[in-house]
This record gives sequence, structure tokens and C-alpha cells, in this order.
Amino acid sequence: MTTTGQQIFTTLAADGTLTVEVGEQTFPDPKPSQVLVRMEAAPINPSDLALLFGPADLENAEYSDGKVVAKMPEPFASAAKGRHGQRLPVGNEGAGTVIAAGDSDAAQSLMGQRVACVPGNAFSEYAIAEAAMCLPLGDISAEQGASAFVNPMTALGFVENAKMDGQKAIIHCAAASNLGQMLNRICQEDDIALVNIVRKQSQVELLKDLGAKHVVNSSDDDFMKQLRSAIDATDAYYGFDPIGGGTTVDACFKAMEQVASAKMTEFSRYGSNQPKKMHIYGRLDLGPTILTPAYGFGWTLTGWLLTPFLANAGMEVVGRMRQRVLDGLTTTFASNYKQKVGLKEMLTKDAALDYRAMKTGEKYLVSPHG
Amino acid sequence: MTTTGQQIFTTLAADGTLTVEVGEQTFPDPKPSQVLVRMEAAPINPSDLALLFGPADLENAEYSDGKVVAKMPEPFASAAKGRHGQRLPVGNEGAGTVIAAGDSDAAQSLMGQRVACVPGNAFSEYAIAEAAMCLPLGDISAEQGASAFVNPMTALGFVENAKMDGQKAIIHCAAASNLGQMLNRICQEDDIALVNIVRKQSQVELLKDLGAKHVVNSSDDDFMKQLRSAIDATDAYYGFDPIGGGTTVDACFKAMEQVASAKMTEFSRYGSNQPKKMHIYGRLDLGPTILTPAYGFGWTLTGWLLTPFLANAGMEVVGRMRQRVLDGLTTTFASNYKQKVGLKEMLTKDAALDYRAMKTGEKYLVSPHG
Repeated sequence: MTTTGQQIFTTLAADGTLTVEVGEQTFPDPKPSQVLVRMEAAPINPSDLALLFGPADLENAEYSDGKVVAKMPEPFASAAKGRHGQRLPVGNEGAGTVIAAGDSDAAQSLMGQRVACVPGNAFSEYAIAEAAMCLPLGDISAEQGASAFVNPMTALGFVENAKMDGQKAIIHCAAASNLGQMLNRICQEDDIALVNIVRKQSQVELLKDLGAKHVVNSSDDDFMKQLRSAIDATDAYYGFDPIGGGTTVDACFKAMEQVASAKMTEFSRYGSNQPKKMHIYGRLDLGPTILTPAYGFGWTLTGWLLTPFLANAGMEVVGRMRQRVLDGLTTTFASNYKQKVGLKEMLTKDAALDYRAMKTGEKYLVSPHG
Repeated sequence: MTTTGQQIFTTLAADGTLTVEVGEQTFPDPKPSQVLVRMEAAPINPSDLALLFGPADLENAEYSDGKVVAKMPEPFASAAKGRHGQRLPVGNEGAGTVIAAGDSDAAQSLMGQRVACVPGNAFSEYAIAEAAMCLPLGDISAEQGASAFVNPMTALGFVENAKMDGQKAIIHCAAASNLGQMLNRICQEDDIALVNIVRKQSQVELLKDLGAKHVVNSSDDDFMKQLRSAIDATDAYYGFDPIGGGTTVDACFKAMEQVASAKMTEFSRYGSNQPKKMHIYGRLDLGPTILTPAYGFGWTLTGWLLTPFLANAGMEVVGRMRQRVLDGLTTTFASNYKQKVGLKEMLTKDAALDYRAMKTGEKYLVSPHG
């Protein structure tokens, strides 16, 4: 028995033409360790957008029924040489109902259940998923369970990583996002101080209403003063930034060093001894990251991705994190969506331009069966 | 008994006026753990220049006998707030003869000996130094022993650090320097593959003549191709850069990722799984470091300084490193100088502009007693 359904594909040609379309796909019977899930809800995360559209010119693209043809600018078209000509599925995560299961006990035990899963082709009517990665949702709806992996495990991962590194405080940039709100709740639960950096007064208020103690607004004239004051109050010399491009990380390192060097009793040409560490976990800004020589040599900047973090953290930590997410899926780890779209609606100009803007608090949810 | 002598001082006023001058200084009797050294030779290292002049405008400075008054540009004048108004000694390292010793056995054992030392005021006729940090030079001349600490321990530190991190290959930028030549010899002795990045054909030839296998020229049109080929041949995903500003680190990360992703069998939107690490250990270019989003998230960039490295490495490793330097001071760890200058000569326009340019292979040596 094979199952056939609609699925989104993205293809980048060597000449920079990007075609994103709804196509027909046949799904095989699940292997012993797998299940076949009828997908009911899948969030459009920034990490999905990087693959789905990247920085393609959506403003001047050709839109037809269930299809977008756009130009990918340089240097991105050439840089993505590894995917040229490949018709790739999209959608890291989602939730739905298990309609077929492989022979293993793990797979069989999920038969008929609603699960959150991480199939890699979640923008699809059906998906094959590893049973071991599925989270049985019980009474939780597919919509509530759709974002059970990427954001919750990432936000929890930041806190786990901070604890592993002996930190008691975190700086978070673009902090009013769904992920940022989760991180705010986790830090409150775990008594980790959190310095939230946002860029609008409305976001300051949003986070303050959620109980955040330290929220600084990068659009304010005294932003650096606010940031220094929050670092001084929390000892946050460790942070996570999803923006990547521009001077956000630079501002954090500068403020950290200014706070640390103000506490030094003697001048050092090399700067303070305070180690400073920032992680870039996204690329909301595809421009270059700018680092100025204003904070000595005691700093580290590193890329951060969930999968290698989980691999390093080990099974026990990951199991504990998954259980915590499941327990808090409608509270600590709840997500909000601006809009629900079907697969074809997802590829209309209005929708694509809107969710590709990745505005804070304006996440889309895909309902593959409409 | 007190000793009096000439010494260089650098003072940055809050208004950005930098005064560097030869002044009279009185040296106290050494404490039990210390010795008083009559300084005979001291190298002008980039790390000394950062404190001595920084990016001050030496072209339009006022030069008088033993004195330079220059303007420090912004943002550097304000950023160095920690030193405003302080009259600071300069000169990390040098060599000379112990003419007085504290009461400890370690200090007494050095009495009358020629030693290399790390006093922090090496541009001086006399200096107080910790006996434990002194290296007895025996038959080695002060000139040969003057650079026994900063460059040798830094170059050895790179190799020690690479080994600690499980690496068998290193990329080194600005590789034709004194330090780079040492690193080339150490890597040959220790069978560590070394990718040397230089910017002139004459430097390519210099290093090739010293037995370097992989030398790539950043001024060549096919620089990136040369770099990829060298990385492919050596598996060098780990490097050290003294330039700091600009796109050198970015080019290394790009080439590393291109080599790694060419070996991938499947496209990943997140880039290769190959960890890539670069260390910035100097700021020959004070412009911003530019990092482009062209190598996924599997990279780490970190500042590197000798002192914290040695502190982390521990006494045993440091002892072994010091012995190796002493054993190879006229071979593996030999330094070359373009010119010798006295203290006052050091503050003439011709000399200052020449050594502040930090041209490869044009290091100055200070002879404090002329």
C-alpha cells in the first residue's frame, strides 16, 4: 500500500532560478523504526525559510497556482551550489496522526495516536517520521503540538548549555519572538537571569507583562547604557543572537567589556580578564557580522545549532528536555500563530511576503489538508 | 641603594593627546623573589606597539629630543579610558645582566648572570623582574635572548593548543613574520601540517626556502583556490590570525567550509558538520572583523592571548615549553632584527614610523644603554 499526497518542494537551479511548488508525492510504507503521519499542522520557522526561499526576490517573483518562480541573488545562488538542481522537501517539524507504523514496538505503539514529529518534509499532507523522535500528544491538539521541537528544544538548549558552561545569566537578542518568550518562561522557572534585547517599545512592554526583569530596547538613544546596566545587574557575559548580521553581537561584547573593565583596579592593554561568549543561532540579517577591536581578546563567538548541541549533550539530557517540553506544551512552551494557511495558499504573494518578513510574533502555521 | 636610569613612558590624556617620552626612573631594591636587571636588549613587538603608540597619528606628531606628542584618533582615545592620565612603562620582554637580587634562593642564584626576562618595562636601562620568570642565558648573547618569551612561547602555544584540541594541522596568517618562521620550524619538528598565508611572492619564497610545504599568497588571483587546496591536503580546520581586522578569518572559514562541503554526500541547509575554529591573537589591522554568512553554524572565532593560555595549560606544560625555548634559542626560536636603536632614537620620527608599520621581517631591537 502506498499513500499519495501533496507536498512542497524547493529547487534552486544553477542559474539562480528558484522554483517552489506544490507537487504530488508518493509515500512508501514505513520501515520498522518509522511511522507514516497524516500531517495536520506545521509551523514556518526561520530555519525552514532559509531553505524554502532564502534571500530570493519574492517581490518580483512569478506566482501561479501552487507555484513561485523567483530569482536568487548572488552571492547566495552560487554559495548554495550543494543544492543546485535538487528538488528538496521542506518543513522541519509538525504534528499529525499516525496512520501506518513499522514493525518495531516503538512504531507500533504510536499507531492511531496524535504525535509531534520532525520529518524534514512537514509542509506536506503526509510524512515518514522516526518513531523515536515522535512525541505522543495525548489530548493536546495538533496545532498546540506543531512546534514541540525546534523552538522549545532550542530555548531549553540555551539554558542547558549555559548551565553546562557555569553561567547564571543569559543575554538574548530579538527576544520578543516565540522562542524568546519561551526562554523568558524557562529562565524564570530555573532562576537564570535573562537580559532581553528587543527593538521596539511594544516588545519591551510585551516581555515586561510576561514578568521579564531586564528588557533593553536597541532603538533607544541610551541603549548601550541600558545594556551595561542590565549586564552589571546580572553578570550576563554569555548570550545568544538569532540576527547574525550587523552589530548586535558587537554591542553585546562592547557592553560586557565596559562593565568588566569598569571593575578593574589596574589598566591592561589587553582588556579585562572577563571571558565573554556569544552564540549566533540564526541569520535574520544576512549581512556580515561586524566585530570591532573594542573588547580585547577575552571573547568567543560561535555558531550554535540544535542538532550538534543535542548530540553533544547526550541521550539522558535530551530525554529530560523532551519530557519537560511535553509537560509544558500548553504553558511554558506554548506557541502563537498569526495565521493559518494551506499548502497552495502558502505560495501566494501576500502570504509569502508576509511570513518571509519574519516579524516578531507573526509566525504562520501550515495546515497541509487545508 | 637605589638605581636610577632612563626609561620610556607612554601617557594618554583624556583629550586624546598621547605623550611618549624618555624619563628618569628610580628602581628600588628587588624584593625577595625579584632581581634587578641592567637591560641590554629588548624587541619592539606588536603587543608593545599597541600600548606605546596604538593608532596615534605619528605622521603629524611633534618630535623633540626623546619625546613624541601625538593625537590619538577616536574611537580609540575614548575606548582607552582605563589608561587616561596614567604614565605607563612599556616593553614586555628583553635581556640583560642581573646586578642585584632579592633574598630568595631563586633570585640569588641569578646574581651576575645574563637572563631573558619579562618585566613589562623593558624599554628601560634597568628593570625589576620576577626571578621565577627569568631564563638564564649562559653563553647566549642578550641580543639573541631578548625575544625569548613573547614570540617563542606564543608560537609554541599555538602548537600546544592545537594538540590539546586534537588537531594535526594549523593555518597561520601573516605567516612570514618572526613568529611565523618559528611556527614553521616548530611544526616541522613536531610533524604538524602548517598552511602559511602570506601576501607577497617574496614571502612565499622566504618560507619555501625554510622548508614550508604549504604557502598561499593572498595577493594572487587564485588565492581561494590555493587555500582550499592546502586545506584539502592538510585537514587544517584550525588557525591563528594576528591581523584581526578585515576578511582574512572570513576567507579561512569560507575555504574550510568549501573543502568540507565538497566532501558531503547530501545537501544540508546548515552547512557541513566540520567544526572550524580560528583564533585572533593580534590586531595588525584595527578595522572591524568581517564575518559573512557563508559557512553555516559550525565555526568558532575566539581571541587568543599568551598569558591566559599559559595559566590554563598549567605549570608542567609551561616548564616544558620554557626548556624547549631555551634549548632552541639560537636555532628554532631565533629572531632577526632590521635595526638597533637607543631609547631616544626610538622616539625619532624616522624610526617610529618605520617600526610602527610592523612590516614583516623588519623588527627593531632596543639597546637601552645605546
